[in-house]
Amino acid sequence: MRNIKLTLSYDGTDFAGWQVQPGRRTVQETLEQAIAAVTQETVRCNVSGRTDAGVHALGQVVNFYTGSDLPVEKLKRAINAHLPPDVAVRQAEEVAQAFDANHDARGKWYRYYVHVGEVRPVFLRRYVWHIPWQLDLAKMQASSEALLGRHDFRSFETEGPNRMSSVRTITYLQWRQRGKLVWLDIAADGFLYNMVRAIVGTVVNVGRGYWPVERIGEILSGQDRRLAGPTAPPQGLFLMQVWYGDEPGIVCDAEFPIFLAD
Amino acid sequence: MRNIKLTLSYDGTDFAGWQVQPGRRTVQETLEQAIAAVTQETVRCNVSGRTDAGVHALGQVVNFYTGSDLPVEKLKRAINAHLPPDVAVRQAEEVAQAFDANHDARGKWYRYYVHVGEVRPVFLRRYVWHIPWQLDLAKMQASSEALLGRHDFRSFETEGPNRMSSVRTITYLQWRQRGKLVWLDIAADGFLYNMVRAIVGTVVNVGRGYWPVERIGEILSGQDRRLAGPTAPPQGLFLMQVWYGDEPGIVCDAEFPIFLAD
Repeated sequence: MRNIKLTLSYDGTDFAGWQVQPGRRTVQETLEQAIAAVTQETVRCNVSGRTDAGVHALGQVVNFYTGSDLPVEKLKRAINAHLPPDVAVRQAEEVAQAFDANHDARGKWYRYYVHVGEVRPVFLRRYVWHIPWQLDLAKMQASSEALLGRHDFRSFETEGPNRMSSVRTITYLQWRQRGKLVWLDIAADGFLYNMVRAIVGTVVNVGRGYWPVERIGEILSGQDRRLAGPTAPPQGLFLMQVWYGDEPGIVCDAEFPIFLAD
Repeated sequence: MRNIKLTLSYDGTDFAGWQVQPGRRTVQETLEQAIAAVTQETVRCNVSGRTDAGVHALGQVVNFYTGSDLPVEKLKRAINAHLPPDVAVRQAEEVAQAFDANHDARGKWYRYYVHVGEVRPVFLRRYVWHIPWQLDLAKMQASSEALLGRHDFRSFETEGPNRMSSVRTITYLQWRQRGKLVWLDIAADGFLYNMVRAIVGTVVNVGRGYWPVERIGEILSGQDRRLAGPTAPPQGLFLMQVWYGDEPGIVCDAEFPIFLAD
């Protein structure tokens, strides 16, 4: 059996998230059915991490085992031919037998888009959180930097599946603005459930002047989810990239349009 | 009665075009209902020109008469509050009694997006024509320039509503590329039915090497729709701007992302 690694894009809008749920349209089931149609085998994909309903991906990674001997480029094209327009395989590679998209992930990069235009954005409505407030980016960046490094992030974790530990290491965190779009690029060795969305909802409270800059550090050290702000809605969130093994784990400064057009 | 001019954005994907049709969701009906909910009057909008099902707008212009004395900024906000997420009023102005969005239009700017990536674009699928061929932009520009100026464009007109004349003047025509996106900006004093889409479908045949550069001029002078290429699909087309009176009618070089984010 060959071990195949796929890198995926999907528009999460019309999916009930990643994981198979009876009677719901999920990315996992959609992908596994497309693969099965090509390989004529029942497959089960390991995923780097589940994404929630409405959350998008540009660089989700999965792996699966197959007896098919199709070259990877043909496999990619054949699977794409069986996928609906809101999911695409960007890359297919044959990898070592032991590679596991979930356990071997060393880091992830997420991006979150906020739109601060007075009029709601008609064409980006599925991909941004539209808010009526103006944001002070300098304050948002200054307050967010308290989160960099290794911390217990339970203040930013929605009660979810049990986890061994809520300690994670944030390696990169940058807020940027271009016109009416404000976005956060954030990378870590791993993320807790809803962690990026909780960080965004909390830091936006600083950016709009509702909370002082010091509050983010206080919330972090308080270790209580009730101290933090609301969980930002799913549609602004994109899983950009997952890093494995010796990959450098560099957050690219790719501008907004680049990825939408890719 | 005051005469109000509105500038609109809409995502045409989920509309059966502009014009009211019984039992179909149209932009006109959606807008007129939102205005009526605000003004408590039955209104009828004049539109610069109808758009077809699936065609988008960033700068569609309408006017309507109202007895309401709401200031235009409040009117805009109130109408937006009654519109669904795929339509937005970008601007509202009070204009002279005689202003008519249709009859007074002096020029229009359309943009058409083609995507030439090997993998289909997941996030732009509603907004581009995805084609499997590589395109030669220099050939496309050279061939298209035969269309500049005043000509009888019946070779690029789908048989439609009767018209007095199929003579129009194209004042601007530019193909551009950025990454996998190729787009046409085209301005004229007016456009025939499906004219931009017929031009795109025809010029793409040159760009992919299927037809020689001279063919566009020959098709134009042949004055027969059967000579030209296919009508490109609606989802790549955006009505960008409509010019009135003394407005300069300048096509802006706005990059792709700007307008999507606006």
